Amino acid sequence: MTTMPMVRLSFDDIVRELSRVLEAVGFTPGKARRSATLFAETHQDGVTSHGLNRFPRFVRQIKAGIVRPDAEPVKVASFGPWEQWDGQLGPGNLNATIATARAVALAGEHGLGLVALRNTNHWMRGGSYGWQAAGAGMAFIGWTNTWPNMPPWGTVSSKLGNTPVIVAIPRGDAPVVLDVAMSQFSYGKMEMQQLRGEMLPMPGGVDTQGQLSVDPGEILKSQRPLPIGYWKGAGLSMVFDMLGAVLAGGKTTHEIGQQRDEYGLSQVFLCVDVSRAGGADAVSRIVGAVADDVHAAVPAPDGGPGRYPGEGVLRVRAENQRLGIPVDVAVWDEIRALA
Amino acid sequence: MTTMPMVRLSFDDIVRELSRVLEAVGFTPGKARRSATLFAETHQDGVTSHGLNRFPRFVRQIKAGIVRPDAEPVKVASFGPWEQWDGQLGPGNLNATIATARAVALAGEHGLGLVALRNTNHWMRGGSYGWQAAGAGMAFIGWTNTWPNMPPWGTVSSKLGNTPVIVAIPRGDAPVVLDVAMSQFSYGKMEMQQLRGEMLPMPGGVDTQGQLSVDPGEILKSQRPLPIGYWKGAGLSMVFDMLGAVLAGGKTTHEIGQQRDEYGLSQVFLCVDVSRAGGADAVSRIVGAVADDVHAAVPAPDGGPGRYPGEGVLRVRAENQRLGIPVDVAVWDEIRALA
Repeated sequence: MTTMPMVRLSFDDIVRELSRVLEAVGFTPGKARRSATLFAETHQDGVTSHGLNRFPRFVRQIKAGIVRPDAEPVKVASFGPWEQWDGQLGPGNLNATIATARAVALAGEHGLGLVALRNTNHWMRGGSYGWQAAGAGMAFIGWTNTWPNMPPWGTVSSKLGNTPVIVAIPRGDAPVVLDVAMSQFSYGKMEMQQLRGEMLPMPGGVDTQGQLSVDPGEILKSQRPLPIGYWKGAGLSMVFDMLGAVLAGGKTTHEIGQQRDEYGLSQVFLCVDVSRAGGADAVSRIVGAVADDVHAAVPAPDGGPGRYPGEGVLRVRAENQRLGIPVDVAVWDEIRALA
Repeated sequence: MTTMPMVRLSFDDIVRELSRVLEAVGFTPGKARRSATLFAETHQDGVTSHGLNRFPRFVRQIKAGIVRPDAEPVKVASFGPWEQWDGQLGPGNLNATIATARAVALAGEHGLGLVALRNTNHWMRGGSYGWQAAGAGMAFIGWTNTWPNMPPWGTVSSKLGNTPVIVAIPRGDAPVVLDVAMSQFSYGKMEMQQLRGEMLPMPGGVDTQGQLSVDPGEILKSQRPLPIGYWKGAGLSMVFDMLGAVLAGGKTTHEIGQQRDEYGLSQVFLCVDVSRAGGADAVSRIVGAVADDVHAAVPAPDGGPGRYPGEGVLRVRAENQRLGIPVDVAVWDEIRALA
């Protein structure tokens, strides 16, 4: 096991440095700051794989012309509370923020709001849009398709995406935000464990010999991560990919896989104005009662206390706000050398 | 391993016999036939655990006053495309059929339609409502909460439901219909494997000693089935329970668990009129291309061909329509002795 040297940085220092790089590759100052802030928030919340650790790859995709810094999403069709937007291959996190804001507005108007976004790019941390919608008082269900990276159950061909799915429920400063991909472990997690020379806590895929494996390096080689619940996660990935492409009039994972890189994704942002049902207090009471009940669960000998999704994030965020945000020195050095 | 003696019966004979029993316990002839038809369709589609095998328990719940044969669901609030209904503790499968039909109508009118149903009962096979909505040309996302039967991750207390989630996409006679609970194996499946003296194909839970187990009897004893993807399925179960109760203004799994039996559930029925986006042909083309790609996946040595959700059902249905519907003799004898 290797430990990585780390440095604790302020939120503002991170935003300033990332903005500098983004402006250098063609972002306007305003868009640079908004995108940099999303990366900094993600990292501050402990999701380092889609925070600063991902930033150099994001910049490479901009330089390669895959992510277009000057593109803006445009509405292409409107069916009342449901709209189709085209992301014009702009920055995925900015496009997703705009799509979420639009779904929030539609739900405010109609009770429900759905934005289906095509031709967009990797949205980085999906949970960001759950936090955004919940912060605006809305319940949220959203997902994105991806480059093919997981086989259909019973097969060895990487044809499905790992399809992050987000569900959020508003509750003041402590909303519930679930952010799960349909693979047991993310590629980011497996790459990190491999770097550290650590094994996974349970089988995360199948090795090149077809055996279940806890070795992240073997799974990265085979490209056969396990779907959650085996055939169940594979099925969930497939239907969300199909439905997202249908709703957005966009590309499926199969079509994305025929390109040279991951771009032109289809994403869905569904909001419900739950405050209409008895007010925000009623929502908080229901959510709080379930959270209390989960906290009262008896821990297993090797387990911990029961938690609701999003609870851990609040603790990490508070600690990082107090002590500074921990960043791998190697990652920070790479970012400072960018552009 | 034990084999159960089976008899092949016609669809009409099954509907007639089940209708007889339901009329005897207080259903009107029309409602008896509709409910019996849902049980027969479920069994014909191969989902025996929620078909005839479940029927005697359904009748016991009616006799115990838990399911009220004469109750009808009523609309209690309307927020444009989103409505709240109260199931009045009526038969769960009839309530769910009515809720789905209403969500279909709302989506036809608004593009999106959501019915959240409280105080209802077990809907039997959740997939039924996916087939119903897809048959009406709508995409569908739906779920139900349940009696607590699964622990939060890291704990030993059964506080979460297994929360069946349904996703359907219309495509003529061959829609995509995913019907998955958030536990790795259903209680029905585990009970059947136990009866047959068979082990599960992979760990399905934790035994009373806290060890992962493939022995269905041990898991039924511990009441600790594994969520799909461990913490991920536990999180999905929790957020769908919270969100369903919020949308319906209904009970959470925690509240249902404080009763003497499983009743008064909260369910969600969301439809999208996907035909608005380029027509039904465009939808079929997108879905068909993904299905074709999955079929082209190379099978693993111990695997089979890649399949899309709902594909297997069509084969089973066609076979049972041709040969008659296979029913355990013991189950059929029990039903004939009912009421």
